[in-house]
Amino acid sequence: MPERRFDLGEREIPRKWFNLMPEMAEKPPPPLHPGTGEPIGPDALAPIFPMALIEQEVSTEAWIPIPEEILDIYRLWRPTPLFRADRLEKALGTPARIYYKYEGVSPAGSHKPNTAVAQAFYNAKEGVKRLATETGAGQWGSALAFACNQLGLECKVYMVRVSYDQKPYRRSMMQTWGASVIPSPSNETESGKKILARDPDSAGSLGIAISEAVEDAAKRDDTKYSLGSVLNHVLLHQTVIGLEAKKAFERIGDAPDVVVGCTGGGSNFAGIAFPYLADKIHGGKIRIVAVEPAACPTLTRGEFRYDFGDTAQMTPLLPMYTLGHDFIPPSIHSGGLRYHGMAPLVSQLVKSGLVEPTSYMQTECFDAGILFARTEGILPAPEATHAVKGAIAEAERCKQEGKAETILFNLCGHGHLDLAAYDAYFSGKLEDFALPQSAIDEAMGKIDALPRIG
Amino acid sequence: MPERRFDLGEREIPRKWFNLMPEMAEKPPPPLHPGTGEPIGPDALAPIFPMALIEQEVSTEAWIPIPEEILDIYRLWRPTPLFRADRLEKALGTPARIYYKYEGVSPAGSHKPNTAVAQAFYNAKEGVKRLATETGAGQWGSALAFACNQLGLECKVYMVRVSYDQKPYRRSMMQTWGASVIPSPSNETESGKKILARDPDSAGSLGIAISEAVEDAAKRDDTKYSLGSVLNHVLLHQTVIGLEAKKAFERIGDAPDVVVGCTGGGSNFAGIAFPYLADKIHGGKIRIVAVEPAACPTLTRGEFRYDFGDTAQMTPLLPMYTLGHDFIPPSIHSGGLRYHGMAPLVSQLVKSGLVEPTSYMQTECFDAGILFARTEGILPAPEATHAVKGAIAEAERCKQEGKAETILFNLCGHGHLDLAAYDAYFSGKLEDFALPQSAIDEAMGKIDALPRIG
Repeated sequence: MPERRFDLGEREIPRKWFNLMPEMAEKPPPPLHPGTGEPIGPDALAPIFPMALIEQEVSTEAWIPIPEEILDIYRLWRPTPLFRADRLEKALGTPARIYYKYEGVSPAGSHKPNTAVAQAFYNAKEGVKRLATETGAGQWGSALAFACNQLGLECKVYMVRVSYDQKPYRRSMMQTWGASVIPSPSNETESGKKILARDPDSAGSLGIAISEAVEDAAKRDDTKYSLGSVLNHVLLHQTVIGLEAKKAFERIGDAPDVVVGCTGGGSNFAGIAFPYLADKIHGGKIRIVAVEPAACPTLTRGEFRYDFGDTAQMTPLLPMYTLGHDFIPPSIHSGGLRYHGMAPLVSQLVKSGLVEPTSYMQTECFDAGILFARTEGILPAPEATHAVKGAIAEAERCKQEGKAETILFNLCGHGHLDLAAYDAYFSGKLEDFALPQSAIDEAMGKIDALPRIG
Repeated sequence: MPERRFDLGEREIPRKWFNLMPEMAEKPPPPLHPGTGEPIGPDALAPIFPMALIEQEVSTEAWIPIPEEILDIYRLWRPTPLFRADRLEKALGTPARIYYKYEGVSPAGSHKPNTAVAQAFYNAKEGVKRLATETGAGQWGSALAFACNQLGLECKVYMVRVSYDQKPYRRSMMQTWGASVIPSPSNETESGKKILARDPDSAGSLGIAISEAVEDAAKRDDTKYSLGSVLNHVLLHQTVIGLEAKKAFERIGDAPDVVVGCTGGGSNFAGIAFPYLADKIHGGKIRIVAVEPAACPTLTRGEFRYDFGDTAQMTPLLPMYTLGHDFIPPSIHSGGLRYHGMAPLVSQLVKSGLVEPTSYMQTECFDAGILFARTEGILPAPEATHAVKGAIAEAERCKQEGKAETILFNLCGHGHLDLAAYDAYFSGKLEDFALPQSAIDEAMGKIDALPRIG
């Protein structure tokens, strides 16, 4: 029997996060002030983020030490396992070797606690008492609820309405860790009220929920805002995933030819990919593939330009691939991938040709997820099925080309709280959304007046 | 930082199951034929079980080799981690060291696949095409669905009605692995029809569902029956849990003073406890505690005598602590612990004074489970909260007595599919059932004519 599991010991959790930015020849342009259109300095972010995170956001250091207190909480589930998917390989009849890093072993069931714990720690250290945030599928909200509970902070979660209705148990999970959860758009914020006035039945979106959480944090002295993806410091914290994978591969004596991750805001993708992108920047032959849903095709059909991170235009203007901040993605089950924009760092890497973006339909991702569950056992989260699909596509290419490549993908979460989506799949109710270009054009039209890059 | 995780390597999965029976001075008396009242031979079980499992049921070998094909599937999630619960210790302010073996990392989320895979393997090897079974909380059904899927068998699951309604996503999980699931009592069997005629709104029970599954297997040539607990061979397969724990403790250089497990049919308890009971039988000072729900107090308020394993009186008469096969336990959320009887081996060990039984109310177990989730991160299954409660009670005793004992408990599953129960807890809807003695007396009265032990 070939080995299937490559576990690291507790003492092998990385002691430093890896910051890709200093390695990038082409860096993303700076965020702009939404009023003046001028580059904003770190101070402009101080009302909503603690200074330590703002410093990480703009840091030029390649390695940033992880405080002991954070490592002490990471130990609850890290290092996460690296598995060889030998059963999936057999089912596909591929000569490729498929490996996956499994982040679903965390208490919240995804990669999200990697940054949630760090963010809660730095906020608590600077005297913050309460964090406000948004959540799509509920994975980020669960992660922050868990982290706040560990660090003694209050936690308020604005949960995208469609997910709140589809996933009642994510709410229960957040409550178990002591968080307070309401559906977004809500009547508790001005931005929420505005949306509800226009559309009382709004399914919500990450963009709207971000507006609500930012507003909440901005108007309360004891509260800061916490974001689960997109920003540099969030991506930074996720690099423990790729760093652990690299360490495990050293022990295996193998190395990936291609790394695959799914992209919503970009954080789990960055987590697995950034440590490998450093190799690629320095001449390595490795390929890095980002997989997004065809229903929200930010990287494959959006434009690289300045846009707001949220619907209500409260955030700075970020340089990123975007479908327009007014774009509300169809209600696919991968709530965590329903975001109009993309992390500036990931966007720049795509623009520079270092990352290959690709997109798949919802049902072909579920097909892949079911095959994975029936071979490897684990039920993937709907978001994670995109990475599974991407990895399977690479393995099938290897089969056609007769190449025994090594494929690594990030299985960013389990689907135990997403079984309603599996139900929809089995009862034939899972819709595929062929997005009309007109919907994108309309949303992009609304950002036409915003400043351009370069 | 003290170490928290004690992982074994993939090569350290036990290669043999441990059979406690040969070590026991007082062995359970033999099962009796329900018609004749005479001891039954292995042949009587042949219509519903494959010969390999019947042989294990009566084996006098202390060690039984685990076939490579089973090990190859165990590797999907075994060895499971052993954690030091240092955060829980801190919250309790106890001098005790608390460790837990976490079986929730399996694909189905509990310890059940340890035996499901073994049972599916031996059935497939003997040419069986289809397995029928019952499930309470859905954990056993999920495990067998997963195992059948891995070994190419069809799987039919009779799911206790109250769990079927409370836990729709357990059904989705079983379907994902290709199983067919119906609520029990059903109209597909004679025993189901009989119950429905008496009580069309029956909440069902494990006893009823067992009758249905046994009947299904008995009337179809291509089908055998599979049981998730109670029988000797099931307990045998679970001993990998305790064997791994012992190996991890050797490395730690510590050993438990007390081992705690929750008991429904007895299998997860046996899994963690039997390897340690061998030490106790040979003079060790270790204490072994079995925790059951006060609403179904088999070991603490039942009688050790012959009774049927199922409601419809289709099984052999088993020597066990029982509340009477007609007893239908209150609809507590710990569906996996709602069983009128108890494994004969576990029953005999209690009778012989080697195992200490104890019981707790539903809400105090949930209190313990929430404290665990808020300190250690993991959300326990309702069943597992009983073990958590038992371990906390021991840790509090240590605090009172000023003793730094080592406590080991089995966290037999996660609660990701039980969040409706957590919801009920938080909304104050979780009922405690103070079981009237009259309910037990009535059910016990109905078995008065059955043969007695000894």
